[in-house]
Amino acid sequence: MNSSDFSLNKLRMDYRVPLPRILEHTDSLTPLTSEFPQSLPENVAKFFPHTAGKPLLTFKPGPPISRRPLRIAALFSGGQAPGGHNVISGLFDYLKKHHSNGQLIGFLGGPSGLINNHAIEITETLISTYRNQGGFDLLGSGRTKIESPEQFAAAVKTVNDLGLDGLIIIGGDDSNTNAALLAEYFIACEVQTSVIGVPKTIDGDLKNNNIECSFGFDTASKLYSDLIANIQRDAISAKKYCHFIKLMGRTASHLTLECALRTQPNGALIGEEIAKEKKSLQDVVHDLAETICRRAAAGKEYGVYLIPEGLLEFIPECKDLIKELNTLLTTDKTIAPSLDQLDLPEKKLAFIQERLSSHSKTCFQLFPHEIKLQLLQDRDPHGNIQVSHIESERLMISLLNIELTKRRANGSYKGTFKPLPHFYGYEGRSCYPSNFDAQYCYALGQVAGVLVQAEATGYLACIKKLTSPLSDWEISGIPLSSMMVIEERGGKTKPVLSKALVDLVGAPFMAFQKNRDGWAVDDRYVYPGPIQYFGPQELTNAMTITLQLESEARKTSASQQLTPSPRD
Amino acid sequence: MNSSDFSLNKLRMDYRVPLPRILEHTDSLTPLTSEFPQSLPENVAKFFPHTAGKPLLTFKPGPPISRRPLRIAALFSGGQAPGGHNVISGLFDYLKKHHSNGQLIGFLGGPSGLINNHAIEITETLISTYRNQGGFDLLGSGRTKIESPEQFAAAVKTVNDLGLDGLIIIGGDDSNTNAALLAEYFIACEVQTSVIGVPKTIDGDLKNNNIECSFGFDTASKLYSDLIANIQRDAISAKKYCHFIKLMGRTASHLTLECALRTQPNGALIGEEIAKEKKSLQDVVHDLAETICRRAAAGKEYGVYLIPEGLLEFIPECKDLIKELNTLLTTDKTIAPSLDQLDLPEKKLAFIQERLSSHSKTCFQLFPHEIKLQLLQDRDPHGNIQVSHIESERLMISLLNIELTKRRANGSYKGTFKPLPHFYGYEGRSCYPSNFDAQYCYALGQVAGVLVQAEATGYLACIKKLTSPLSDWEISGIPLSSMMVIEERGGKTKPVLSKALVDLVGAPFMAFQKNRDGWAVDDRYVYPGPIQYFGPQELTNAMTITLQLESEARKTSASQQLTPSPRD
Repeated sequence: MNSSDFSLNKLRMDYRVPLPRILEHTDSLTPLTSEFPQSLPENVAKFFPHTAGKPLLTFKPGPPISRRPLRIAALFSGGQAPGGHNVISGLFDYLKKHHSNGQLIGFLGGPSGLINNHAIEITETLISTYRNQGGFDLLGSGRTKIESPEQFAAAVKTVNDLGLDGLIIIGGDDSNTNAALLAEYFIACEVQTSVIGVPKTIDGDLKNNNIECSFGFDTASKLYSDLIANIQRDAISAKKYCHFIKLMGRTASHLTLECALRTQPNGALIGEEIAKEKKSLQDVVHDLAETICRRAAAGKEYGVYLIPEGLLEFIPECKDLIKELNTLLTTDKTIAPSLDQLDLPEKKLAFIQERLSSHSKTCFQLFPHEIKLQLLQDRDPHGNIQVSHIESERLMISLLNIELTKRRANGSYKGTFKPLPHFYGYEGRSCYPSNFDAQYCYALGQVAGVLVQAEATGYLACIKKLTSPLSDWEISGIPLSSMMVIEERGGKTKPVLSKALVDLVGAPFMAFQKNRDGWAVDDRYVYPGPIQYFGPQELTNAMTITLQLESEARKTSASQQLTPSPRD
Repeated sequence: MNSSDFSLNKLRMDYRVPLPRILEHTDSLTPLTSEFPQSLPENVAKFFPHTAGKPLLTFKPGPPISRRPLRIAALFSGGQAPGGHNVISGLFDYLKKHHSNGQLIGFLGGPSGLINNHAIEITETLISTYRNQGGFDLLGSGRTKIESPEQFAAAVKTVNDLGLDGLIIIGGDDSNTNAALLAEYFIACEVQTSVIGVPKTIDGDLKNNNIECSFGFDTASKLYSDLIANIQRDAISAKKYCHFIKLMGRTASHLTLECALRTQPNGALIGEEIAKEKKSLQDVVHDLAETICRRAAAGKEYGVYLIPEGLLEFIPECKDLIKELNTLLTTDKTIAPSLDQLDLPEKKLAFIQERLSSHSKTCFQLFPHEIKLQLLQDRDPHGNIQVSHIESERLMISLLNIELTKRRANGSYKGTFKPLPHFYGYEGRSCYPSNFDAQYCYALGQVAGVLVQAEATGYLACIKKLTSPLSDWEISGIPLSSMMVIEERGGKTKPVLSKALVDLVGAPFMAFQKNRDGWAVDDRYVYPGPIQYFGPQELTNAMTITLQLESEARKTSASQQLTPSPRD
């Protein structure tokens, strides 16, 4: 009944993704190396004896390293992001362009597919129905980390058994850290397989001087913005409800910031700012209540407020509480079972409260009943609280109800507070990629192939000049080790790929900061609408405001560096 | 920063909506009357002494009734539905086509704007930024019912003061019932103003032999389907979560049915079927648990299930419970205040439980703590429980957790149940109308103008042959009184516009029933994607599956009536 040839599903399968000029007609690319400007700190370098200090790789047209067919395997790691299937199709098309006998393997279910050699061959017939589609369902994904010596050995066995020239890991910061360690391990074991990472995460926190953005951020932020704008238009029509919208993005608030720039809501909490200003939970509630009261005084009983998924971890006292609860629940092995044996919710809460520090107890007592229970009941396999499952939009509503009742009693608020909670997250992870993500991912897949062909290992596939016309996009390989920092995790120091938080002096946040007061009381809602695939290119291929502002800022900064300032 | 001329916002403003041939080049339309096949029952007719038995109105090109400029006012009533602004722009353009001095007035904030004569003039400059836009924010809306003699008198005063030729009420069943009563009252008072209704509701329950569908249903069902499909693609990629998605649509489950037909989820509860089969809450949970267990046995720990907003009111025992609670809370005026004075949730629950019948008490005790409290706390201004606010998706999850724990204990379920709740509602009320709704509403606005010009009153603007090419759409006016039934409300009999529930022998439900077993365990998810405004017409102008199937069924039934069956 939905088999019409004019379904978007079919139309997207048939969409021919354009390529940057350098990838367009040839697989013949010669690598150019250039030294990295900054050298790696000693404490990082020691984890990467073979891959530290690798050069930056760029490419120019020229003879390829070899003409023999390549055999490459790919896997998805971690949460879905729109465009994943296009990384695979880009890689597939590159392999076939390089040599008609090139072969692409896919590991099923994420990294565990590599460990268990659970794989399929990807053929043209198979990939054809996944071109420009959402999801990771061609292969599935998983969150297994390759950590133990046995796991590393199993990975070596698989790539040897399959005779792989390359292994492509499509993942976020953790997965690319894993890619870096695998590359290092493979060299140590004299395994010839290149390991290449591809920067994936809707959260947008995998970026730095070399990575302009991760894939999926564009689509997810556009999808959430459409929904936020629909709620805004409903709010201003009905003039009745205050909507609190939680958005995915736990470690960083890029998605909330981008959505705020796109839709101009009455408020948006940016976790990094809250952390910097060391706000308490009550401070955050107070700020929201202020806007609600100002709006009520202006006769506006409605409003729309954005909340990042990771809110609580940005509020110092809540972060401490979560840490304390996690220590309680995981360190003393008797506590969790004792807690779970208690039948009544009240007993559970009392049991935990008497074990908390007075500081954390005060914070915990602010939480409404359901959230307290959620904190205690919803634990991951290691016993830790699942912060991403905390319904912070409902927490805000609950605390605002208390705050506004007080203000109503003292006469400073005369409104009727009718709050509604929303959460947009899973909707934006597996939807059809925007044209930008479809094009970006398709090119990233090709770059991953180019890097294997160039016999590079421990590199991240990278594309620069993303705000230029697509034909001018520049391709490169960034050594993964160059992006590592050292973190303490579980009592051990480990190299990890550093995450980019929202830069509070960066152009996107400053644009938000400059405008938000105007958005708070005046209604300057913007309605971007659903993602479009046809029509004027200015509409269908538009990028995130974050990427545009950051690119402009880079250009300005570059031109300022060229022009000596008067003081020099 | 979003002022680009290529924003969807601007591109939609500039979209020139095509018109059916009969409305395309002329305002010169002569009415043709034809008697209604069935006559009105006596108990209905007595409420409409002046407007009962009015003929059906159709139109043919010919001289209009008059050439003088018309003065018409419009208002929105009830919840938002995509396309409302196009009814206004269609009406505006008709008025100006009829005579350049025609004037359009808009009442602000719904029916209360009529009562208080709170109105604005709608000019070309004003309407131009609302063409093809979502929301009702040009005028706002409201839920005031015109019931008291004072309100009727105030309405008469307003239309006389403004010298209106016509009053257009854009609303659902209640609002159109109001339109019918106003028309009747105006005639009785010798007021010349025509009252015309326009069928609006995303719920799709305002339809009958004459109304093929209400506006907004097309867009809302497409928007929800996009989101459901994104969740499906995420579920089949992550293979981890069971998603329970509540969809708007309280009195009828048309939206859930249409979304199920579009996306083919693993399950969808259709309220009308549950009511017909007199299922208990436990039966409903049992059915869902069966599917979850069958899927788990097939190695599928994920799934997507749709739940209509009105679920509880379709389950006889829950309907009884809600009725009993409402009677308790509204009849004895001491109960609600006593309840509200109790401080602890447990005390509140105990207080109510001891006042319930044993039948309702058993049902109430099945509910989880939060939902019980929600039922008691969330009351409308009349003290009634707000059924639409009950989080039935969370109720299902809570009861499934209990049921699946039992099944795990007896060995019949071996899965890990990881449920996630979602609710899609407000997102679909005020979004950009699909091309279908934009075109349908623009034409409906013009028909409303044609009916005023023809001096018709107590009519609903109507367009037929919606599945034919737009140029062939047929326009008519249906007497509102012909669609009325008598209901008892608050101890009084009243005429009301009858709502259409899902027809369990109708083509859409039968298509669902035939296919759902296949969808339950096999994954036959369909991904329709976001609403598109550009590209092939087959994509951008496609209609709901409900409308297509119902139209095909009507054609088949008509041709069967023409061809004598062998048994005749």
